[in-house]
Amino acid sequence: MDILLGDREYFKGVGQIKYEGPETDNPLAFRWYDENRVVGGKTMKEHLRFAVAYWHTFCGSGLDPFGGQTLFYPWDEKSDPVARAKDKADAAFEFITKIGAPYYCFHDLDVVDYADDVRENEGRIKTLTDYLKQKQADSGAKLLWGTANLFSHHRYMNGASTNPDFAVATHAGAQIKMALDATIALGGENYVFWGGREGYMTLLNTDMKREQEHFAQMLKLAVAYARQNGFQGKFFIEPKPCEPTKHQYDYDAATVIGFLRQHDLLDDFSLNLEVNHATLAGHTFQHELQVAADAGLLGSIDANRGDYQNGWDTDQFPNDLMEWTQAMLIILDAGGLAGGGINFDAKRRRNSTDVEDIFHAHIGGMDVVARALLVADKIIQNGEYHKIRKDRYASFDGGKGAAFEKGDLSLEDLFQLAAENGEPATTSGRQEYLENLINKFI
Amino acid sequence: MDILLGDREYFKGVGQIKYEGPETDNPLAFRWYDENRVVGGKTMKEHLRFAVAYWHTFCGSGLDPFGGQTLFYPWDEKSDPVARAKDKADAAFEFITKIGAPYYCFHDLDVVDYADDVRENEGRIKTLTDYLKQKQADSGAKLLWGTANLFSHHRYMNGASTNPDFAVATHAGAQIKMALDATIALGGENYVFWGGREGYMTLLNTDMKREQEHFAQMLKLAVAYARQNGFQGKFFIEPKPCEPTKHQYDYDAATVIGFLRQHDLLDDFSLNLEVNHATLAGHTFQHELQVAADAGLLGSIDANRGDYQNGWDTDQFPNDLMEWTQAMLIILDAGGLAGGGINFDAKRRRNSTDVEDIFHAHIGGMDVVARALLVADKIIQNGEYHKIRKDRYASFDGGKGAAFEKGDLSLEDLFQLAAENGEPATTSGRQEYLENLINKFI
Amino acid sequence: MDILLGDREYFKGVGQIKYEGPETDNPLAFRWYDENRVVGGKTMKEHLRFAVAYWHTFCGSGLDPFGGQTLFYPWDEKSDPVARAKDKADAAFEFITKIGAPYYCFHDLDVVDYADDVRENEGRIKTLTDYLKQKQADSGAKLLWGTANLFSHHRYMNGASTNPDFAVATHAGAQIKMALDATIALGGENYVFWGGREGYMTLLNTDMKREQEHFAQMLKLAVAYARQNGFQGKFFIEPKPCEPTKHQYDYDAATVIGFLRQHDLLDDFSLNLEVNHATLAGHTFQHELQVAADAGLLGSIDANRGDYQNGWDTDQFPNDLMEWTQAMLIILDAGGLAGGGINFDAKRRRNSTDVEDIFHAHIGGMDVVARALLVADKIIQNGEYHKIRKDRYASFDGGKGAAFEKGDLSLEDLFQLAAENGEPATTSGRQEYLENLINKFI
Amino acid sequence: MDILLGDREYFKGVGQIKYEGPETDNPLAFRWYDENRVVGGKTMKEHLRFAVAYWHTFCGSGLDPFGGQTLFYPWDEKSDPVARAKDKADAAFEFITKIGAPYYCFHDLDVVDYADDVRENEGRIKTLTDYLKQKQADSGAKLLWGTANLFSHHRYMNGASTNPDFAVATHAGAQIKMALDATIALGGENYVFWGGREGYMTLLNTDMKREQEHFAQMLKLAVAYARQNGFQGKFFIEPKPCEPTKHQYDYDAATVIGFLRQHDLLDDFSLNLEVNHATLAGHTFQHELQVAADAGLLGSIDANRGDYQNGWDTDQFPNDLMEWTQAMLIILDAGGLAGGGINFDAKRRRNSTDVEDIFHAHIGGMDVVARALLVADKIIQNGEYHKIRKDRYASFDGGKGAAFEKGDLSLEDLFQLAAENGEPATTSGRQEYLENLINKFI
Ligand SMILES: [Co+2]
Ligand SMILES: [Co+2]
Ligand SMILES: [Co+2]
Ligand SMILES: [Co+2]
Ligand SMILES: [Co+2]
Ligand SMILES: [Co+2]
Ligand SMILES: [Co+2]
Ligand SMILES: [Co+2]
Repeated sequence: MDILLGDREYFKGVGQIKYEGPETDNPLAFRWYDENRVVGGKTMKEHLRFAVAYWHTFCGSGLDPFGGQTLFYPWDEKSDPVARAKDKADAAFEFITKIGAPYYCFHDLDVVDYADDVRENEGRIKTLTDYLKQKQADSGAKLLWGTANLFSHHRYMNGASTNPDFAVATHAGAQIKMALDATIALGGENYVFWGGREGYMTLLNTDMKREQEHFAQMLKLAVAYARQNGFQGKFFIEPKPCEPTKHQYDYDAATVIGFLRQHDLLDDFSLNLEVNHATLAGHTFQHELQVAADAGLLGSIDANRGDYQNGWDTDQFPNDLMEWTQAMLIILDAGGLAGGGINFDAKRRRNSTDVEDIFHAHIGGMDVVARALLVADKIIQNGEYHKIRKDRYASFDGGKGAAFEKGDLSLEDLFQLAAENGEPATTSGRQEYLENLINKFI
Repeated sequence: MDILLGDREYFKGVGQIKYEGPETDNPLAFRWYDENRVVGGKTMKEHLRFAVAYWHTFCGSGLDPFGGQTLFYPWDEKSDPVARAKDKADAAFEFITKIGAPYYCFHDLDVVDYADDVRENEGRIKTLTDYLKQKQADSGAKLLWGTANLFSHHRYMNGASTNPDFAVATHAGAQIKMALDATIALGGENYVFWGGREGYMTLLNTDMKREQEHFAQMLKLAVAYARQNGFQGKFFIEPKPCEPTKHQYDYDAATVIGFLRQHDLLDDFSLNLEVNHATLAGHTFQHELQVAADAGLLGSIDANRGDYQNGWDTDQFPNDLMEWTQAMLIILDAGGLAGGGINFDAKRRRNSTDVEDIFHAHIGGMDVVARALLVADKIIQNGEYHKIRKDRYASFDGGKGAAFEKGDLSLEDLFQLAAENGEPATTSGRQEYLENLINKFI
Repeated sequence: MDILLGDREYFKGVGQIKYEGPETDNPLAFRWYDENRVVGGKTMKEHLRFAVAYWHTFCGSGLDPFGGQTLFYPWDEKSDPVARAKDKADAAFEFITKIGAPYYCFHDLDVVDYADDVRENEGRIKTLTDYLKQKQADSGAKLLWGTANLFSHHRYMNGASTNPDFAVATHAGAQIKMALDATIALGGENYVFWGGREGYMTLLNTDMKREQEHFAQMLKLAVAYARQNGFQGKFFIEPKPCEPTKHQYDYDAATVIGFLRQHDLLDDFSLNLEVNHATLAGHTFQHELQVAADAGLLGSIDANRGDYQNGWDTDQFPNDLMEWTQAMLIILDAGGLAGGGINFDAKRRRNSTDVEDIFHAHIGGMDVVARALLVADKIIQNGEYHKIRKDRYASFDGGKGAAFEKGDLSLEDLFQLAAENGEPATTSGRQEYLENLINKFI
Repeated sequence: MDILLGDREYFKGVGQIKYEGPETDNPLAFRWYDENRVVGGKTMKEHLRFAVAYWHTFCGSGLDPFGGQTLFYPWDEKSDPVARAKDKADAAFEFITKIGAPYYCFHDLDVVDYADDVRENEGRIKTLTDYLKQKQADSGAKLLWGTANLFSHHRYMNGASTNPDFAVATHAGAQIKMALDATIALGGENYVFWGGREGYMTLLNTDMKREQEHFAQMLKLAVAYARQNGFQGKFFIEPKPCEPTKHQYDYDAATVIGFLRQHDLLDDFSLNLEVNHATLAGHTFQHELQVAADAGLLGSIDANRGDYQNGWDTDQFPNDLMEWTQAMLIILDAGGLAGGGINFDAKRRRNSTDVEDIFHAHIGGMDVVARALLVADKIIQNGEYHKIRKDRYASFDGGKGAAFEKGDLSLEDLFQLAAENGEPATTSGRQEYLENLINKFI
């Protein structure tokens, strides 16, 4: 991938980020991410399918609930929204090609600001779709997924697809349609729903059942429209338990899977799992991955990390090798991400105001994930980790245990077996041994 | 209900607890629970179906992770387990009849201690079943539900139905069979599964998918056995997110409902929701009730409360009128609890060592729930609360909104409607108004 | 207090809020707050000293981390900052006089927008100080406290008084000076420090000790300046554990008291305690009040409530009678708030967009606090609550226990006493009894 | 250190654990802990001063709030308490010498069971003190600290030193005296207070101020007694926010330091910080270390880890290299632990029932801490980490900033400086750069 510049260079002083190996002292080089290195039969690039998130990386302002903008961008200066959007696209592709990510992701509103006029917006997004299409062609970067931002505009303050007012739901539908059009036109490989306002602020004013039925209905309309227009990719739902709402309907992986099953949406949808959303929901990231993998619905990842002392979505860049090693074991066991990739839904801190900070953040994140892939691969090659787990369930692999699994035993049969065989032997779970085993390869 | 004593009186100095009204100064009287008072067409007794929990109230030792027994019972002194169990049953029915609860609930191990010999245990539980049957006949108290304790014995340290060792699963099955036998013999109206060890301590040693399939299989065997033996009641699953395990499979209402749907168990099962388990899972109690009610699965309640500063299951007695008023609104809207009741899965504090404390705890709990019923009924009679919520969704009751609900509109239709109708009006969610409305009736 | 309007009426359709009693159906009336009602020797107005918070009530935009402005104000339309600020002041005093609060509170930036020029800002705040002074005179409303907003401007992203760059600290000092000038000129009764950015985002780049010393130094300069200029009120520190920073130095009451003692600031400072900050720090509000009261430092209150399912500062209006009853017991036991009052640092939800919602929010909050005062007073009149607690410590009121308290016993004396007296009697903590006692008066 | 056996070998099949280096496949060898390896001028043994915790490692039963004993020990079989205690001591020193820890720690009740007779207990602990003294002499292992268990006996259910009943406080005093006697006799280097019951279950029945004064008084008596009897070591307080109580007075490092300062106890006391207690209190472990270090009170460490999804004290063995690297940086910057060591207040999981699991748990913990020491040392050698932090505060190292630190500037001076110098430059906090820097050395 060659660096792709627009009319001006936005990230001056930083060239293409190269792999230089663990011993390098260059902070603007990869120490672990070596895109062509083959691990377990695939290149790192193929395994990880890294994507840059348009919203944080090119739109993030540094605003927080107690403070104003800290990040001011040279590509955000023009007064004409379309011209400003093109500058941003130039900056985006400069960064994407410098960092060497094969993919990017966006919401409609990341790409171009919308007015309060649907037809006007339709024109804007089409213009930018054409512009991005050319950028993709020139650079080779691809769209991992698109989505519609149905949470920032004040009209969505009571919900988008789940708004009690049908008039608002029509606007949600309109945005989804335009975002699908853009995604399809750009060859986007997937389409994501994150329902930031699809939940409630108080149950006192909420008909949860009716709202969830509206949400299912909207998903069905989106699938029907996209399939009619040739979209063959996956739809993802991204779970999150709360924030900005008090309670968000797509609480966690298990909740979303139950919802998809209830509404017969399992064929078209799988999950986009975010680390920080997992931890906000009271789970480990690994847990959410395993739940999705067990259901055959492990689609994609929003890579970041939360802060266990802060009860909100801090969306920090990944830096925990232990967490990612365990995650990679699950992903590799699942045969990889089905259709998706690893998108950095992560923002540098609002006081990380140097241009280089954008690069350090992504380099650190890509390196820790790549390194985790290497460690996980070593654990798998070693074999003991899987053997211990497999052996643990051996009593179900034959004999009465297998009969139980097949449904050939009754409750009375179990009673008889217990009565005859007496107290079972005590078997250690060996947790500390396994934890040491993981650390051995880190 | 008359007081039923055994050979001796255990709760001396306390007679039957009577309703004396809000103005009473008698701490051993009800101020709100007036069992025959009619509220919305049913008596309080019929609405609430209070149950006393055998485990906390008659077996609770005061043990905590950092301290030993503080509660020593006169009915727990005999060395013969069956004789000791009968004393406990005497004490239980003395208390149940003094407090005036129409129901009680138990685990097998609450009723009588088990040995490590299945046949021996079968004999013990049968003896006690006969004894309790007589107690029920003599007092009129009934069994709301029975269950098997599949978490205390060390054999279950790696799980019961989800144990990696089939031999342990057979013991789980044996206990379930015997607990079902007892429940059926005693005319128990329901049977509960709380899977305290059905989860994992670390994902590193766990095949979550296989374990969950084993769990579903066990539930099916239990249903088949019970139905063959004439049980016509409901099975309940009681969600809890963790503790004692790191992660428990029956995490919350939505997770359990998804599991039941996946394994085609919705016909026989509904939910037993516990307040403290809701809050440990990151939800309000009201949320869990609403999730269950929306699925038609609101079966029963384990009434207690947690402590928001303490991250474990404190199982304190209810005392929050606001929380229970909002809960009662949902329960009444759902048409009441389907088959179940309100069981005090609550323990007095380990330093509440006076005999009277057992009564104060239950009186306080029953009063706050009864008072909440009265408040909720007033809110419903007033009508504004429901009207505001209904009106909020009026745009879906006819016209294009109704067409959307029916599936008669496409995504393009929504786009057209949004484009034509322009920006929707802003509509307040009126949260503070509704909160004031609730407080008006408290 | 008469309604004070400026050039136009901003809250049309709402007149002065009156006390109408618990039975009223008028949602725009007080049901419990009856300002002249005497409770325990003081009027409600004197007890509660309610204050309206300029920032939420007149400046709150509805922005949240995932969404834009939802609240648009007619007093926020003029382009000239000073003219706009005067309109806002008109609206503020209209609201304050309509709701009937005796006090208000502000940050410098609430009163008037600042530019990036210190001299210019000095002029602006002086102009508004004069304007507000007249408003106060015309209405009788008073300034409970003033403060400087040292967290919103991007210059404070690494801290204000604790910024690693001394140049930023000078700006913090400049703002504090001007805010003190305004507070003194307006007869403000107190001055508050809430250190939103006085903490760290990561320990990796932080010299915590040096930063805290800078903070103490700044407090000393502020006290010296204010005293020289005739300020006789209290300084308050408002604890909060985190948000916007990862960790805020003024974590909770105990931490702040320790800091004040270490730096010899106890004479001039006490605490302004916020409900939601208490719960974010892992405490009950009552706990924080008691800690402050025990140190003689219970100065003032920021009244609001958090959401136990949401790990950030939701700043909702109070509505929990139980929580406030227990709080009022502590406040009354402490002899009331020393110098401060009850300031509604609370915001209506961003989807509460009707003009009336501002009133409903404040009415609900004022009513629940007033009602709690009445309940707490009844509990105190009844006497049993205090008697139980006093009796519990009776063994220290005389004899060896009193000798221990006086320091007249040695460890060996205790050993001898324990050896001689043997195992102590078991004494119930009677928690459920006491909880019922509180509920009896609710 | 040679293996020290008693009459029988308890940990058969496991010999002395040796350092074999990172590449070893032997799970019963150290990969990183090489006790004689010199790091930054001291051996690993001197840096880390590892201690084995008597309670978890030799007394832990596997009990949890929902389940019974899972761990059954051959040294726990004799009926005579003193004989049983000697067997346990044999097992303890066998383990300590096999694992190669230079220290151990105990509560009085770990060493020998107590009866309800103070004189009898005095005899028992003296007998065991003699026995342990010989064991120490034979092995070379030393006592890092002793303490009294003032939380397990039911008499302490309402507190020990803070009990409302003075009679209970005398028993606390008696136990402290005997534990001090034992600690002094055994050459214990420190003495610890962990106040498991020194807090409250409900504020409703609690006079927090009086209880805390009693606590301070007891600490003073303990210091006086110990100093009179020749003890020259440090006293440590171990903070914990709650559990078993709702609220524990020694909440966190800042709270304890404030308490010590208030009661003039800073000369004799410093802190024993536990990882899991830090995280339960809403802090990182690093934060607590830094708070203690900044006060010159970083005494000792209870090494373990919590589970961020479980809100109780899971006391798992350490396994997170990132967490410990950052901890080691603070410890090394502080000049090491003042008097204390690193005690494994950690328990293997209750389902880790193999003998080897005890070794795996300790080996894993010792290795991760040792490895963190090596990484931290490399970071320090590299120098950039400290340089970045130091440079960040350079504006206070001279000129006006230094004058501010010295107290030579007034608030008006700051105002003038801000007005003259205008808006400060924006300086990045470089958080991601620093995070990458840490990961570079892992
Ligand atoms: Co995301
Ligand atoms: Co996020
Ligand atoms: Co329960
Ligand atoms: Co519970
Ligand atoms: Co506040
Ligand atoms: Co707040
Ligand atoms: Co500890
Ligand atoms: Co601990």
